[in-house]
Amino acid sequence: MRLSELEQTSGVPAATIKYYLREGLLHPGRTVSARLSEYDHSHVQRLRLLRVLREVGDVPVSRLQLLARAVEDERPVHSLLGATSDVLAPPPPPDDGGRADSRELADRVVEAAGWRLRPGTPDMENLAAALERFEQLNGHPLPIDLLTPYVKAADGIAQHEISALDTSAGRGQLLAQMVVGQVLFGHLLAILRRLAEEHHSGERFGRPQE
Amino acid sequence: MRLSELEQTSGVPAATIKYYLREGLLHPGRTVSARLSEYDHSHVQRLRLLRVLREVGDVPVSRLQLLARAVEDERPVHSLLGATSDVLAPPPPPDDGGRADSRELADRVVEAAGWRLRPGTPDMENLAAALERFEQLNGHPLPIDLLTPYVKAADGIAQHEISALDTSAGRGQLLAQMVVGQVLFGHLLAILRRLAEEHHSGERFGRPQE
Repeated sequence: MRLSELEQTSGVPAATIKYYLREGLLHPGRTVSARLSEYDHSHVQRLRLLRVLREVGDVPVSRLQLLARAVEDERPVHSLLGATSDVLAPPPPPDDGGRADSRELADRVVEAAGWRLRPGTPDMENLAAALERFEQLNGHPLPIDLLTPYVKAADGIAQHEISALDTSAGRGQLLAQMVVGQVLFGHLLAILRRLAEEHHSGERFGRPQE
Repeated sequence: MRLSELEQTSGVPAATIKYYLREGLLHPGRTVSARLSEYDHSHVQRLRLLRVLREVGDVPVSRLQLLARAVEDERPVHSLLGATSDVLAPPPPPDDGGRADSRELADRVVEAAGWRLRPGTPDMENLAAALERFEQLNGHPLPIDLLTPYVKAADGIAQHEISALDTSAGRGQLLAQMVVGQVLFGHLLAILRRLAEEHHSGERFGRPQE
């Protein structure tokens, strides 16, 4: 297909497609003539993925490039998922100097969960920052038991997600699965949690029409 | 305490505190003289809450005002939580005209979950939009079974959260609990899920040092 058709099929404007081509986020089409390229389904797929990342994941272009590079090099699957997490994890807020205790608490949460993580994984700092925030709000550290239902839910979902990954389809497809899993299903989980809270609030406090 | 001390204790700059006072997001202090007000712990608490909403929840000031108003009127607790959700739920992306089937699927998800929701709750449209996004990416609608682990996890967490709300502490405190629950624990859940994915990815695909 030509650029105009690619634009229509993917829902991504031609100017953005050209930008992604320049930035190396989208692989070039097959050259037909000096001014004409032919695109295929793989371009449509990649554009839709980029759209989810931009619109749902709120991931800036500079970080998308890290992801695109991760597909192309030869690192093992576990590192590929690590690279995905690193790109999708929000950058941790700066430490004002009071995060040491929260880092220790974060370590204890992960130890209690039985999780083995890469050294320096950025989400550990995000976890510490969130625990620090809790302490600032409440005047005391988060009792570790309060996190147990969240740890258990996260563990169950993650185990399900990782076991559902289909590794037979090539690295590009695998990365797409990981990204969709992390971004779109993370988004779905957040929505479902708010809906479930509304339901259980109605159950506990009563609904207006009752 | 004076404004300068409030600034130091809450970590919110004086200019921002004045802005929140002007916009009605922060209740006025006790007037000492024409140019001097006295603030107390309730101001520190509110400022920390606003900080979480702005920094973690990414909630714009215009929506914070809706929340502040919800504390002050007399609506029942269930509606207060609804108001909180409505403010914290992201505005649904515009419908390009192809969302009807996804809306039907969203209804079926909620029905299967057994959740009773307010008519027109904005997260139903967010759910439909996310399901539509899945279909655009994958070329087929999301098989409803794939959502089951997420629905169960969301339901379990929400039930726990709603039962843990302490209603004895007044509406302002209750709203703070709801907001911290939705924003900070939602944030924690997202981090824990990424950490758990990293762990289970290592378990399935092996770690570099092994």
